[in-house]
Amino acid sequence: MNVNERIQALRALMKEKNITAVYIPTSDFHNSEYVGDYFKCRAYMTNFYGSAGVVLITQEKALLWTDARYFIIAANAIKDNEVILMKMAEEGVPTIEEYMCEHLHANDTLAFDGRVVSATLYKQWKELLPEVNFKSDEDLVGQIWTDRPELSNAPAWLLSEKYTGKSTAQKISEIREKMKEYGTDYHLISTLDDNAWLFNMRGDDVHSSPVVLSYSIIGMDEVRLFVNENKLSDELKDYLKQSGVVCYPYNDVYEHLTQLPKDKTMLMNSAVVNSLLLSSCACKIVDAPAPSTLMKAMKNEVEIENTRQAHLVDGVAVTKFMIWLKDEIKKREISELEAAEVLYNYRSECEDLIELSFDTIAGYGPNGASMHYTASPESYAMCKAEGFLLVDSGGTYKQGTTDITRTFVLGPLNETFRSHFTTVLRSLIDLSLAHFPYGATGANLDSISRQVFWEKGLDFKHGTGHGVGHVLNVHEGPNNIFWRISPNRPSIVMEEGMITSNEPGYYEEGSHGIRLENEILTVKAEKTEYGQFMKFETLTLAPLDLDGVNVDELTQYEKAWLNDYHKTVYEKISPFLNEHEKQMLAIYTRAI
Amino acid sequence: MNVNERIQALRALMKEKNITAVYIPTSDFHNSEYVGDYFKCRAYMTNFYGSAGVVLITQEKALLWTDARYFIIAANAIKDNEVILMKMAEEGVPTIEEYMCEHLHANDTLAFDGRVVSATLYKQWKELLPEVNFKSDEDLVGQIWTDRPELSNAPAWLLSEKYTGKSTAQKISEIREKMKEYGTDYHLISTLDDNAWLFNMRGDDVHSSPVVLSYSIIGMDEVRLFVNENKLSDELKDYLKQSGVVCYPYNDVYEHLTQLPKDKTMLMNSAVVNSLLLSSCACKIVDAPAPSTLMKAMKNEVEIENTRQAHLVDGVAVTKFMIWLKDEIKKREISELEAAEVLYNYRSECEDLIELSFDTIAGYGPNGASMHYTASPESYAMCKAEGFLLVDSGGTYKQGTTDITRTFVLGPLNETFRSHFTTVLRSLIDLSLAHFPYGATGANLDSISRQVFWEKGLDFKHGTGHGVGHVLNVHEGPNNIFWRISPNRPSIVMEEGMITSNEPGYYEEGSHGIRLENEILTVKAEKTEYGQFMKFETLTLAPLDLDGVNVDELTQYEKAWLNDYHKTVYEKISPFLNEHEKQMLAIYTRAI
Repeated sequence: MNVNERIQALRALMKEKNITAVYIPTSDFHNSEYVGDYFKCRAYMTNFYGSAGVVLITQEKALLWTDARYFIIAANAIKDNEVILMKMAEEGVPTIEEYMCEHLHANDTLAFDGRVVSATLYKQWKELLPEVNFKSDEDLVGQIWTDRPELSNAPAWLLSEKYTGKSTAQKISEIREKMKEYGTDYHLISTLDDNAWLFNMRGDDVHSSPVVLSYSIIGMDEVRLFVNENKLSDELKDYLKQSGVVCYPYNDVYEHLTQLPKDKTMLMNSAVVNSLLLSSCACKIVDAPAPSTLMKAMKNEVEIENTRQAHLVDGVAVTKFMIWLKDEIKKREISELEAAEVLYNYRSECEDLIELSFDTIAGYGPNGASMHYTASPESYAMCKAEGFLLVDSGGTYKQGTTDITRTFVLGPLNETFRSHFTTVLRSLIDLSLAHFPYGATGANLDSISRQVFWEKGLDFKHGTGHGVGHVLNVHEGPNNIFWRISPNRPSIVMEEGMITSNEPGYYEEGSHGIRLENEILTVKAEKTEYGQFMKFETLTLAPLDLDGVNVDELTQYEKAWLNDYHKTVYEKISPFLNEHEKQMLAIYTRAI
Repeated sequence: MNVNERIQALRALMKEKNITAVYIPTSDFHNSEYVGDYFKCRAYMTNFYGSAGVVLITQEKALLWTDARYFIIAANAIKDNEVILMKMAEEGVPTIEEYMCEHLHANDTLAFDGRVVSATLYKQWKELLPEVNFKSDEDLVGQIWTDRPELSNAPAWLLSEKYTGKSTAQKISEIREKMKEYGTDYHLISTLDDNAWLFNMRGDDVHSSPVVLSYSIIGMDEVRLFVNENKLSDELKDYLKQSGVVCYPYNDVYEHLTQLPKDKTMLMNSAVVNSLLLSSCACKIVDAPAPSTLMKAMKNEVEIENTRQAHLVDGVAVTKFMIWLKDEIKKREISELEAAEVLYNYRSECEDLIELSFDTIAGYGPNGASMHYTASPESYAMCKAEGFLLVDSGGTYKQGTTDITRTFVLGPLNETFRSHFTTVLRSLIDLSLAHFPYGATGANLDSISRQVFWEKGLDFKHGTGHGVGHVLNVHEGPNNIFWRISPNRPSIVMEEGMITSNEPGYYEEGSHGIRLENEILTVKAEKTEYGQFMKFETLTLAPLDLDGVNVDELTQYEKAWLNDYHKTVYEKISPFLNEHEKQMLAIYTRAI
């Protein structure tokens, strides 16, 4: 079936079931940012495979909402079918909720799969559309999708305590302390990163995310893990057993929830649990963030030390790549695809590499200005000995997850390009140098990052920083650095042990893109009568391309930071390089 | 009666009425920051007359909560009575709510005057203390306070449109537009500054605040103003009549609220209306901020131009005072009281001065470290030709309200003092230079102000900026500049036309205090592809004492700002000075 035929098949089913509209989001049962192939219903119904988008299908129309990052890609994807693009946040384009309010009337029926819609969203709909009927148990796409992929069944394994630094038993005990503070008897965890963290369990059920499809219910003297037990390694099975965890089939969680005692209380976060989980639960709900989310973000000493190791091997790979790239480009053109491949090969030299933490973005020239650019065999550029190559990449190692962006100077630059590069670099350094009282949030600190942009009337349209997991998701809250606060993205206190990206950028559509990204660890600085001060330790270890820098634009403090940083990079990375590479690294990390 | 006797009298009444605890805040019926003498129950019960504090009295204890600005002053005020100081935000000190939760038990009774407790606070108590009884109609202090002052009855007058720039009719029409957006039929305004703004009415019912005790109810085709009509000037009465406003007695608002139609809706802000107003209202409540609050904060062109005039005459007074002070201190010692008096006299030379916008703070040496120090005939210091004199003062003129702090160098400084002064100055300048996209809030910007403190492990324990009214309150939200966000003080977008103070400080208890304060107007900067950028225009015009500056610590941009600023000060102020003063101002505003 092509997309139009799929839409027709869905409409036939809708008629049969007396359904007015079907809502198809981009989500799995766990509110994940990226989802496994089984869950790609929205992509199946539209041919648009970007990471964000929502579809509403009625008898008359098939509408796809997506955001600015994807306008061009989505328009291209749907050009041969009847899907209509709704450009989010553009003037005159209603939100999907506004559209539903206008077009759904009394006694109309909106259908969706309650497992892929969050409890909070469903609650909002019921308030917004009081006269509309909801059918929340309809996986309609599943009924027409004949060749739907199976649910992922990738092996799951134990990430040993020498990497995680804390036992599952200890983590459970800490969670129970928090449950007591909330006065709750049970706690439901449905987010995959939280379960992976809690059970020291890793897998491969989502592309580039080493997570395992699972739910868990923590009681005061029992722990139930809902997972396909066949995929667990023997070592992991033993570990879970020793930790007092009992496994049940993945889909049984709903039935278990209905069977819990009515007079008990359940801690769950309605913003992330799906609406079927919430409605299945027999207990009284206490709605609050899962305690594990903050615990997981505040890395322990063992995780931090391992993460430093991961950055060392990752930095060696990126440094070798940089030397190869800047040598080779003098001799010949290099495709973006080859660049990504060579970098992958350098990373693969480390046997502890599990996978890339996301698909490498290697964008040359104008492609660097497209924030989520992916080269493909059908469409890629050739790098020449001029301008910038932006490379955003990372690895998931047994020791930790990395995310690093370097923009490499491939040849002569004009003064404007050099000034843009220097502004991005100054922004990176200014945040690295930040020193602030405990209690400050990312929204407080972002103006320190962006000052060098703002003073010139410039800016960049993405966050300065996102949290990074430990051998887990490369985007992992709750920490973030962004000046705009929204109810969906509150700005939280930068706690000791949090790892956050520091990634300012500058983008000129059709011309060039520059982004530089280090990962920074929040650590304690001195305690004074004004309280505990905090600062950042930079974890990432790879040269920042000095060929892009206009030294005159740096303050003395920025210059000192850069020279210190490069000194550290040379000291740590050079032992892993051959003689030629050492010589080049010495040049790339020279004091300025 | 002394304070202990007053407490005993209150306790006797409590016993009689079977009341466990009495809550006595610092408030009037209008949620004002500063209150008339009639409302000073908390001061009457404690002898602490600072602007902020809350008392809880039980049979066993009399507890006073106040914030860091007042720790020293309050401790002094209560040293001869049984009141116990609870230092807010200090480690180990419970908040008053935490204290009540711990010490009030089932069937205990908490009494308060519902007219001085906000509807929001009362609601929180009911949730926090579900088993406690509340008596919300007990003005117990009023019952023991035999010589209580009368409610203020000061004359009220019309501030003409040549100063306000907008008619009451126009303002009412704009408010009705907002009421329509909320779908409401009525709107209650109980805050005095909002009523003063809306009716172009000024008075003197609160010390240093030109407001008039009043409530108003705006309907779609009627406006009711609850005020003692006898105090209104004929001109004001006529103006109100022409604007379609009908006056009713001040206390009748509660009765009117009960008589409103039950099927209509009322816009009110439960965070600021008192709990009796809310409970009296027969209509369905729509709880949202009063539209006038934001309208009032965004000054119009006429208000801005008048405010510039106010700063000019105010700057002349402060400059003359500075010259007098720095001349005179070479010859003799000067008391803090005389300094404040001389400054007042200079301000009085302007016939448009209505009153000081607050009692002048003139704190010499260690007294400067007490943030809200007031000298009194019983207790004041003599300034000598050494160290700092901190003077925080302002005037309410027909043209506008000013608030300015200068710290004057009276003689030789050591390097540490000079470095502290320079840090405060740099912070002031760094915020003055801020340039930011529309949408940024005070919480975003405050880290720009504080960076020079934070990088040294220093800080100051007050906000960097508060909104300032137009011929109104010298502290007037909703705009503020402070990095810490709390539910009570959200950080709002810096809108065009807002006037905010910029007042970093450095305080060393027992040694010295430094604060520098300018008022800054938010104005549009350029519009780029990244949106509308905003910046600040400094309104305040008086020298920043160069004798305190270590020029080497300033960046080139800071130096340039300071020289530009001083050039402007000289140009604008010097025409109003005599020859000697001109010569001195030239020295005080010299380029560095």
